[in-house]
Amino acid sequence: MSERWKVVIVGGGFGGLSAAQHLNSNLVDVTLIDRRNYHLFQPLLYQVATGSLSAGEVASPLRSVLSRQKNTRVWLGTVVDIDPDSKRVVLADGTIVPYDSLIVAAGSQTSYFGHNEWQEWAPGMKSVEEATTIRHKILYAFEVAERISDPEQRRAWLTFVIVGAGPTGVELSGAIAEIARQTLKNDFRSINPEEAQIILLDGAPRVLMSFPEDLSQKASHSLAKLGVQLRCGAMVKQVDEEGLTIESDKQTDSIAAKTVVWAGGIAASPLGKILASHTKAETDKGGRVKVNPDLTIPNYPDIYIIGDLASAMDRKEKPLPGLAQVAMQGGAYAAKAILRKVKGQSELPPFHYFDKGSLAVIGRAAAVADVFGAHLSGFIAWLVWVFIHLMYLVTFQSRVLVFIQWAIQNLTFSRGARLITGAAPTDFNFTKELSEIKPASTNAPR
Amino acid sequence: MSERWKVVIVGGGFGGLSAAQHLNSNLVDVTLIDRRNYHLFQPLLYQVATGSLSAGEVASPLRSVLSRQKNTRVWLGTVVDIDPDSKRVVLADGTIVPYDSLIVAAGSQTSYFGHNEWQEWAPGMKSVEEATTIRHKILYAFEVAERISDPEQRRAWLTFVIVGAGPTGVELSGAIAEIARQTLKNDFRSINPEEAQIILLDGAPRVLMSFPEDLSQKASHSLAKLGVQLRCGAMVKQVDEEGLTIESDKQTDSIAAKTVVWAGGIAASPLGKILASHTKAETDKGGRVKVNPDLTIPNYPDIYIIGDLASAMDRKEKPLPGLAQVAMQGGAYAAKAILRKVKGQSELPPFHYFDKGSLAVIGRAAAVADVFGAHLSGFIAWLVWVFIHLMYLVTFQSRVLVFIQWAIQNLTFSRGARLITGAAPTDFNFTKELSEIKPASTNAPR
Repeated sequence: MSERWKVVIVGGGFGGLSAAQHLNSNLVDVTLIDRRNYHLFQPLLYQVATGSLSAGEVASPLRSVLSRQKNTRVWLGTVVDIDPDSKRVVLADGTIVPYDSLIVAAGSQTSYFGHNEWQEWAPGMKSVEEATTIRHKILYAFEVAERISDPEQRRAWLTFVIVGAGPTGVELSGAIAEIARQTLKNDFRSINPEEAQIILLDGAPRVLMSFPEDLSQKASHSLAKLGVQLRCGAMVKQVDEEGLTIESDKQTDSIAAKTVVWAGGIAASPLGKILASHTKAETDKGGRVKVNPDLTIPNYPDIYIIGDLASAMDRKEKPLPGLAQVAMQGGAYAAKAILRKVKGQSELPPFHYFDKGSLAVIGRAAAVADVFGAHLSGFIAWLVWVFIHLMYLVTFQSRVLVFIQWAIQNLTFSRGARLITGAAPTDFNFTKELSEIKPASTNAPR
Repeated sequence: MSERWKVVIVGGGFGGLSAAQHLNSNLVDVTLIDRRNYHLFQPLLYQVATGSLSAGEVASPLRSVLSRQKNTRVWLGTVVDIDPDSKRVVLADGTIVPYDSLIVAAGSQTSYFGHNEWQEWAPGMKSVEEATTIRHKILYAFEVAERISDPEQRRAWLTFVIVGAGPTGVELSGAIAEIARQTLKNDFRSINPEEAQIILLDGAPRVLMSFPEDLSQKASHSLAKLGVQLRCGAMVKQVDEEGLTIESDKQTDSIAAKTVVWAGGIAASPLGKILASHTKAETDKGGRVKVNPDLTIPNYPDIYIIGDLASAMDRKEKPLPGLAQVAMQGGAYAAKAILRKVKGQSELPPFHYFDKGSLAVIGRAAAVADVFGAHLSGFIAWLVWVFIHLMYLVTFQSRVLVFIQWAIQNLTFSRGARLITGAAPTDFNFTKELSEIKPASTNAPR
């Protein structure tokens, strides 16, 4: 094989995958490195957390997505360092991968704002494993509540708190409300799943802060109808085994809740800081690397940073949001820029993000959408949401199944993926929980 | 509520669930206790292990299966003891559940014939977690092989050994052969997945010993066509990180293999021994409890043992096999016997197992079937298999999806559930593996 221009892409999320797909040219050799063997469709992860979908339905193996692209290889590996001067990427196992052009799309991770100890009690919503943990917690809480009679304890088990009222938090709380009210309706004997309280918290004054205000209001309305309690303007002060402490209007308040989900904040991958230290690039307070208008790092025209790891500005000098769309467009831009360079063509104009709009689903058949400036809500918005997600998903093989499954669920309210897997629950904490709290009865169930 | 006759069922597998469903009568109160919140359709577990199906597609929450049956409650709990004299079941958390009639359907677990240390290197095929582990190992082996160049190491990573040539072993080896030859065909750059060796081992002289000999031969033939190497009459002497040592014809031989799956043997749940010690019942060498012709324990007419935990005899005094069919029929029998007793009706005649036949799938569209005495093979047998499994699965909600998915896969050879989940692979052993063995190259991939 000839020595073709070597492009290394770090990360197989929306940005990295988009870049790889736009580099489908025999002028370049592409190596995509990810810690996972799959691309995760994060906007649907809340459906895994709530048992509507299986992990396999919201993720596609990177190898199979890219299998037809013969210039591209996929490596399973963790990037621990990047040397911008010798142009090499270093993996955790010591493997060194040289590049001619580098695209860093390492994304973001959940941030507890300096309180990583909260993670134990309030898992985030970024990975398949976290989504599975949350599903486990939700379903398990109902199982425990079924077996205890102390009303206070029961209430704590049946209280679900979601921290962060962005799209993920809104979607998750709507879905939990539906599980409680509909899916599990006939499944229990001692408890009534409607006893469940679902609380959605945010420090901001309204839900969906990134949306226009009228859509925020519509979303609040829809959530209230589903039985979700909204607490805006509330800051989390403490999270532990028993629940959480919040502060709003300078009043402290505690909520007894056995299930807390953190959809509250994100921070850039630590790779951003590593790269910045080598290149003297600046980072913003979220740890994102400040990039040039063409998404490269100052003084390093061969290193592109795209997606959640990049701090890029739009034309009004406002930072671009951490959205899949931004990452995908950034990936496409970087790929095109590299191909032009290899071909000896002139440089591209600066990156410009084209905002197609934002969407958030609320429950079974409602949503809010801000699409090309039009504000939609209710069922119409939901149809737009389904259409857009369908468009994206069918680009991967047989993802159409996901939609068949949704259709069935929308008709039946049932959820196919309601399994509590992982360590056998009775072995790891059910026993403990139930021996600490008094069992419901030592008599026969009736 | 009145004090109705209390039936406790231990275990929600084929036997326990069948018993619960046949106890759908307002004469009895039923409590079904299981460590898991779901019923697992074990015959399809190999499809989870090979990435064709997600766990949610081969398992149904017990609660939803039984939600319409108002006399039945489902408890998540581990039974640790049974006191047959005071008629009480004891759970791990100390909860005591009294019964009037007890059905013990605790099933079986993987047996390593005294070598539990092999489990680390050769997971069994009994649970969702084990199937997920096996999937992880299989897919991961290809990932590692893609990155190393040493031919010997590569060969070990691309060698898959399945111990035990019963239906599970046959189905699993056929499916792995297809993954290697078809599904991953275009996904790798350095390796050719066809380099993979799939070896199916058994101590017995032929595969599928429980089937008629002509069908065994047909199965061997089909496996060979798929590229599976058969090694019958081979005993496993040792399993470790590097592979396994086998003995056949008094010759010892070692096979370097990074992926070994144990489909080799089962032993009864430890609950059998506990129960036998209290009741003075006998157990057979597999730990199964010897029962009366009506499936009760001698001197304890209110304790039924069904399924894999029971050592019951057929009319020819041959022990009944550990099959789903036997468990289901036993569960139905015990349920009917209890209802007759509650109604004050005469006793049932002894349990008689009605053998409808056996089936095993080999690869994508072939099987062997011994159905009502007719010996079928190839595509016809596969159709019978699909039909029978479909019949069973559609009794649970929306399981029809599984078949849509199969149909798509049969057309495309793709597998939707090929995710490596769990601890991030790079963090837990990929790094270790690759730093121990020499990396493929310190140069760029081309």
